Amino acid sequence: MSDELRRLFADGAVPLALLRQRAHNQRWAEQPQQVIPLTAADPDFAAAAVIREAMVDYARSGVFSYGPPAGLSGFRKAVARRLQERGAQITPEGVIAVNSAAAGLAMVCRHWLRPGDEAIVADPVDYLFAHTVRGAGGVPVLWKVERHAPLHLENLEALVGPRTRLLCLCNPHNPLGRCFRLDELEQLGRFCRERGIRVLSDEVWSDVVYPPATFTSWLALPPDLAANGAVVYGFSKGFGLAGLRIGFVAMADPDAAAALLASSDQPSTVEGVATISQVAAEAACSAEGQAWLAAFLEHLQARRDQALAALDAIPGLSVHPPDATYVLFARLPGRQLSAPAPEPGQDHELALELEERRVEALVERLRLRHGVAVVPGSRRWFGPAAVGHVRLCFATSEGLLAEGLRRFAVGLGEETGSGPG
Amino acid sequence: MSDELRRLFADGAVPLALLRQRAHNQRWAEQPQQVIPLTAADPDFAAAAVIREAMVDYARSGVFSYGPPAGLSGFRKAVARRLQERGAQITPEGVIAVNSAAAGLAMVCRHWLRPGDEAIVADPVDYLFAHTVRGAGGVPVLWKVERHAPLHLENLEALVGPRTRLLCLCNPHNPLGRCFRLDELEQLGRFCRERGIRVLSDEVWSDVVYPPATFTSWLALPPDLAANGAVVYGFSKGFGLAGLRIGFVAMADPDAAAALLASSDQPSTVEGVATISQVAAEAACSAEGQAWLAAFLEHLQARRDQALAALDAIPGLSVHPPDATYVLFARLPGRQLSAPAPEPGQDHELALELEERRVEALVERLRLRHGVAVVPGSRRWFGPAAVGHVRLCFATSEGLLAEGLRRFAVGLGEETGSGPG
Repeated sequence: MSDELRRLFADGAVPLALLRQRAHNQRWAEQPQQVIPLTAADPDFAAAAVIREAMVDYARSGVFSYGPPAGLSGFRKAVARRLQERGAQITPEGVIAVNSAAAGLAMVCRHWLRPGDEAIVADPVDYLFAHTVRGAGGVPVLWKVERHAPLHLENLEALVGPRTRLLCLCNPHNPLGRCFRLDELEQLGRFCRERGIRVLSDEVWSDVVYPPATFTSWLALPPDLAANGAVVYGFSKGFGLAGLRIGFVAMADPDAAAALLASSDQPSTVEGVATISQVAAEAACSAEGQAWLAAFLEHLQARRDQALAALDAIPGLSVHPPDATYVLFARLPGRQLSAPAPEPGQDHELALELEERRVEALVERLRLRHGVAVVPGSRRWFGPAAVGHVRLCFATSEGLLAEGLRRFAVGLGEETGSGPG
Repeated sequence: MSDELRRLFADGAVPLALLRQRAHNQRWAEQPQQVIPLTAADPDFAAAAVIREAMVDYARSGVFSYGPPAGLSGFRKAVARRLQERGAQITPEGVIAVNSAAAGLAMVCRHWLRPGDEAIVADPVDYLFAHTVRGAGGVPVLWKVERHAPLHLENLEALVGPRTRLLCLCNPHNPLGRCFRLDELEQLGRFCRERGIRVLSDEVWSDVVYPPATFTSWLALPPDLAANGAVVYGFSKGFGLAGLRIGFVAMADPDAAAALLASSDQPSTVEGVATISQVAAEAACSAEGQAWLAAFLEHLQARRDQALAALDAIPGLSVHPPDATYVLFARLPGRQLSAPAPEPGQDHELALELEERRVEALVERLRLRHGVAVVPGSRRWFGPAAVGHVRLCFATSEGLLAEGLRRFAVGLGEETGSGPG
């Protein structure tokens, strides 16, 4: 690792003035000046030089004609090559450029779900799964997933009904930081294949995995399991390109990918991806892009350990070390609420709502009185199993993270009486 | 007009090598090497220097965080200012960045139509109107519009039923090149307002209008009429930014715009617009961008006259001079088929289909045997009233246009026996 690359993530390298103008989605541009936002999972660093240079060259050329509906040929090739290097069965023809990972989830859900079809969605998990299932007219069925517990296929079996068409997998998992093992994926893959359930594997976090954990793409499973799924990815998490709106859907079978594309609104030109964003993503897949990513990961691993040490020192707070992602999901001290029962009674629902409001009020006080913003574990963001938690993003510099965590600890102590006092 | 600006549209300025790599949607990158594509309405010129420079600066900065769902503040202000200069009632809060004009049409249709609602759509007109109405579950009801004939509100009245919710207007009109006058728009506006019908005004061609015609935006109508509509625009036609996927929806009432945004999938991040594309569009709205546009328009007006002269010399071909757009819509020599009757019988449908096939086969022979590609006036592209026509785009250089038209004339002559022979 070169010092030059390491310096890109130093305290002085955070482009605060630009972030205060440009970082939306609950981050710098949407907070009072003194607040440190450990909110949306979006890095506080400028993108890799190789990405910027590719964009500069493309912008200079000035030719911005209509791109092809499936994406630029160079983009599709670069993505396929990178996936192949991870053991995936994929060709460029199986790759479709999409306008963010979220757009990819929506595209797959609309293709595979008919109104009333059921899709199994983890609880907790990022809200975009239930949102895109519902957007396609489907019904999310919640599947309790924990940080360490085995996957309990008997629990999954109990959720399968005649309308179950899809299992939505978030691998690595946001917000739990769980990176599913090969044997777990194979087990899930066989379970789904035997029951005619397709698998949507969101691998947007697949770049951010900490050794000794290793990431296995759905497309690297045995061919019959891989062919039963679609992989979604975005360049926002690993490369900080959220504003460029660029991701892909990848399928082992090029004909299946062509059918997905045909069912979407990309051929009509209603939907589509900016060509310069595809050029940026292609550059991210280059050797220089991967070297930048390795340096970013080294930085992130140190920040993860820094954050875990700081949170461990807060009495009553409980947090599992993540194997992947740059978020920490912490159970707050105070009322302990078990996960919802399979058939929650009214009392449980009421308790859940009260706890949700308590955490949201606490998060708002942390933000306005203590200068640190985090994401409350509300049902609308992560599902009912998230209630009682907060999510903190640590993709920032050592100094900002230290100060953000200090404010979090002090604020939590003052607001709940559980902190260092 | 400076010579420097004029030179941007000279024969030698066409970036052919880049177009052959990048211009999709039936253009250079999708044609055999020797074919001149007068197909998709997309210019053969590089974008304005001010746009490229703004993109270069933004790309260099390297901060590509999440943008706001409604669009960047600078983009919304620049758009509002430009619309205000055209007499529109608009504030930045009424402007929403969208991922192309087509995406804007889809957003408005989904907001204003419930399944089974009817929307009046011109015939002929660009296919995206019927497509986005259907995409929202609506039913397009075709309204015959001609190049010069008065709007015949009694014909429109006959189309209005209890489920009519929307009138889709293409102003200026593609492919007829008609720029609706203020009095026509007011007449339409009152008609719709009295009947509780909203107006979707697609003004993607509003930059390309030839004197003495003048463009009137829907938002420049009297306040009660303006407030009953939504304007859609894209930066593809006037500025050649199709590949950047950037447009806007504008509404006079900021609360109505906020409701439209809330009903869309932009707040969820499933949909959204690349921030660098918004930066490019903001630059297009600058004084330098407008100066570039003026030079482009001067060039286009000369190309329009060049094309009209060439087409007028083809026996049996009939074409109306467009007041706007850079397309010509020409009725081919050969079988003369009247527009469909209000209740077309089977014989008429069959005749229409045969004529459609004849034109499609002719267009394919022109492309493969004579080296010039044009768009057939097929029902799926423009509606039934387009059958028997072809559309030619003239947004290229004088030399390429002359050669393209020469091939068209010779090919038409050889294929139909009606040309110069």
